[in-house]
Amino acid sequence: MITVTVLYPNSDGLKFDMDYYLKKHMTLLAQRVGGALKGYTVDRGAAGGAPGSKAPYHVILNLKFESADAFAKAFGPHAAEIMADIPKYTNVEPVIQISDPVVS
Amino acid sequence: MITVTVLYPNSDGLKFDMDYYLKKHMTLLAQRVGGALKGYTVDRGAAGGAPGSKAPYHVILNLKFESADAFAKAFGPHAAEIMADIPKYTNVEPVIQISDPVVS
Repeated sequence: MITVTVLYPNSDGLKFDMDYYLKKHMTLLAQRVGGALKGYTVDRGAAGGAPGSKAPYHVILNLKFESADAFAKAFGPHAAEIMADIPKYTNVEPVIQISDPVVS
Repeated sequence: MITVTVLYPNSDGLKFDMDYYLKKHMTLLAQRVGGALKGYTVDRGAAGGAPGSKAPYHVILNLKFESADAFAKAFGPHAAEIMADIPKYTNVEPVIQISDPVVS
C-alpha cells in the first residue's frame, strides 16, 4: 500500500473552504478514482513544532492505494478535472508526494 | 486523537541514515514518551506529484497521541534529548506540526 500525501501550505493570506473541500472536492476525487482508493484521512493543522508557531500546513490529506501504478491508472485519466477543481476552495498550490511504507 | 507529523525535506545533499533512525532514534523517542504514544507510521518519499519529480520529503513520520496536551506532557521533558539526537542521522532540520483529525 502506498500513500499519496497532499499538503496545503499555511501561507499568509491563505483561503481554504473546508466545507467545499470535504463535500465537493473529496467527493469528486473519490468518485473519479473509484475502488482504487483504499481509504483516506484529512487532518487540519493546529500548531507548529515550536511553541506558539503556526502549523506549516493548513490541511494534510493522506490517500491510500495498492501501488503507485494503481494510483496512476485511477487518477491519471481524471487528473485535469480534479486539479481544475482546486481553485474553487483554495488559493494555494498543494505540495504532493507519493510515499512507500517503512513502518505501518 | 491528534497527529504529530515530522517531515524531513528531501534537500539536495540530504544525508539520512534510515537504519539509525528506525533502530536508535525511534526507539529513543518511543521509550521517552512511553504509553502516551498511541502508534506511529514512517513513510519514505518515492516521487513528487508531477511526473518525474522527486518527493518533497524524504521521510514522513506520523505520531498519534490522545491530545496536544498529552503530547506536550510526554514529549516536553525529553524534547532536548530527542532533538539532540537528530544530527546523528540527518543533516536536515525536520518540519513539524500538530494536526487535528477532520476525516479519520
